[in-house]
Amino acid sequence: MKRAALVLTGFGNVGRVFFSLLREKADDIQKRYGLALETMAVARAEGCFYSGGPLEGRHVSRGGEPWTKGNPSWREGFRATDVIAELGPGGCLVECTISNLETGEPGMSYISSAFHGGWNAVAASKGALVVGLPALRALAAENGVFLKFSAATAAALPTLDVGLVSLAGARIEGIQGILNGTSNCILTRMGEGLDYTEALREAQDKGIAEPDPAADVGGWDSAAKILLITNTCLDSTYVLKDVHVRGITGISVDFVQSARREGRAVKLLATAAPGRQGVRWSLDVRPSLVEASHPLVHVNGTEKGITFLTDSMGSVTLTGGRSSPRGAAAALLKDIINIYRPPF
Amino acid sequence: MKRAALVLTGFGNVGRVFFSLLREKADDIQKRYGLALETMAVARAEGCFYSGGPLEGRHVSRGGEPWTKGNPSWREGFRATDVIAELGPGGCLVECTISNLETGEPGMSYISSAFHGGWNAVAASKGALVVGLPALRALAAENGVFLKFSAATAAALPTLDVGLVSLAGARIEGIQGILNGTSNCILTRMGEGLDYTEALREAQDKGIAEPDPAADVGGWDSAAKILLITNTCLDSTYVLKDVHVRGITGISVDFVQSARREGRAVKLLATAAPGRQGVRWSLDVRPSLVEASHPLVHVNGTEKGITFLTDSMGSVTLTGGRSSPRGAAAALLKDIINIYRPPF
Repeated sequence: MKRAALVLTGFGNVGRVFFSLLREKADDIQKRYGLALETMAVARAEGCFYSGGPLEGRHVSRGGEPWTKGNPSWREGFRATDVIAELGPGGCLVECTISNLETGEPGMSYISSAFHGGWNAVAASKGALVVGLPALRALAAENGVFLKFSAATAAALPTLDVGLVSLAGARIEGIQGILNGTSNCILTRMGEGLDYTEALREAQDKGIAEPDPAADVGGWDSAAKILLITNTCLDSTYVLKDVHVRGITGISVDFVQSARREGRAVKLLATAAPGRQGVRWSLDVRPSLVEASHPLVHVNGTEKGITFLTDSMGSVTLTGGRSSPRGAAAALLKDIINIYRPPF
Repeated sequence: MKRAALVLTGFGNVGRVFFSLLREKADDIQKRYGLALETMAVARAEGCFYSGGPLEGRHVSRGGEPWTKGNPSWREGFRATDVIAELGPGGCLVECTISNLETGEPGMSYISSAFHGGWNAVAASKGALVVGLPALRALAAENGVFLKFSAATAAALPTLDVGLVSLAGARIEGIQGILNGTSNCILTRMGEGLDYTEALREAQDKGIAEPDPAADVGGWDSAAKILLITNTCLDSTYVLKDVHVRGITGISVDFVQSARREGRAVKLLATAAPGRQGVRWSLDVRPSLVEASHPLVHVNGTEKGITFLTDSMGSVTLTGGRSSPRGAAAALLKDIINIYRPPF
């Protein structure tokens, strides 16, 4: 049995679901992969849950809410990096904060200090990766540790695994994706007759869209994902400013519905395509008219999908994967297992 | 630069395309993965092409045909295992023979002797795997080598990578696939108006169906694939006799066309589903009426597709992947790269 210590940073929706998913799955993971994964600390901005041993639910919450005051496992002012220093190298940081797409913080500091401490990192947050992926990869290599971020690149839809593992040796000649569930859900409902405002409000009422939906409907979430997928699969170093972004805000219901009547669909497509001479790629996100024969035309509701065009394997399309904190938590867990499991 | 010696067994369609694909890709693979993959021998029933150095096209063929008589690189009676013994451990066998689904030969002997010689193996042929996967996996583990067979399980459609890597930690609760391009092509054309005999003849004229189409239209190719995918992803030991198989031979054009008129489709579905109590799974292949909302309903022509149902990641569907010797060769190459590349 191989043991691995985990430190969880951020304890919002994804962090909490990850924390319980891991306990739900612990026995299975021991049996199937010979791995004992133990959450040793949960770090928040003000301190850590940390008791020196693996954390159980009763150490971190009471009545379903995080429990700090009077909790013997709560260490005010203690930081993730203090835990990492105490535990020594070999563990894995599980980065679930809400990080800023411009500064990359707080994820950037968490991940960098994990690498310096000889820890691997898996991330659900995009900020640090969007801002500094090349530097982070170099730092990981320097410290002999791994960085994985399936949960930040469409989560349960396995975009990076397919791009890196399944298409190994093939030349990727284009990528197209429906990478944001919220805007796809709004477009799907508009195709069914709602106007933009109604469809957005419905998505907000159902908890699908955020109260401030700008990142989703403005295309920035899709832009961050196509950027990370492209840079990872192509080993390139594009930055967010290289992505031409147009979202679906205020899109006309006539456009969406007339497409639908013709058997086509309007989708918020994120695209990476080689430019002339194949040197510099163009990356963009925009509402696009998708033909009836397009492999992503039937991706509806909160579902996501991605198509890779290749030279030797033809086109490979993935669709589905749960769009929810549970799907993101499962993607984090998958990355951790793939870091520690024996080669096969 | 890491070097790996390859020995190719079988020099039919897939073997020949693999041999040239590797030379086409050699520079790319060196640059991207730091790997020099060298085909040291091509073994056929009567002997080997083997000259002591990496083989080029001119060593094995003349005017597009294999060249034995008078060829200084042709060693009559020399066998793959002789080459492996001469080269010493660490190489990879590339198994492309046409192997028998009942005896597993000649693939079984080739793969076993490779393992005994400390070589890894990748396989495009199904026979040895269908007959003896558990024994082969044990033998590989005993010898500290790897066995991969993407090319035998829908080739460029990455079924096993997704089941093993992308769904790590998720519980697979069902698998459904359209795994045979030939029968899917026949059913698609029947939906467009041809009867069974016409659609089969057309597929044969186009080189999609074999002159003897029994393995494809009879469902046995699909059965072998769902068996291998299930046993690999679930770590189970079902045998071919456990699969209930019904093919599409002589299927009624009315059935196919009336489905189509209702927005549904008839597909040759290969299914693995847990039985009661979830203990023993049932595996079957049969022509199935697929609803308009089914993720595989739009998989047409020679295209293939697979859906995994899971507990924590929802359902994940893959479609596409080139159905051709080039797609199979690309899948072999992918498996080889994934055996030798550094962890990432």
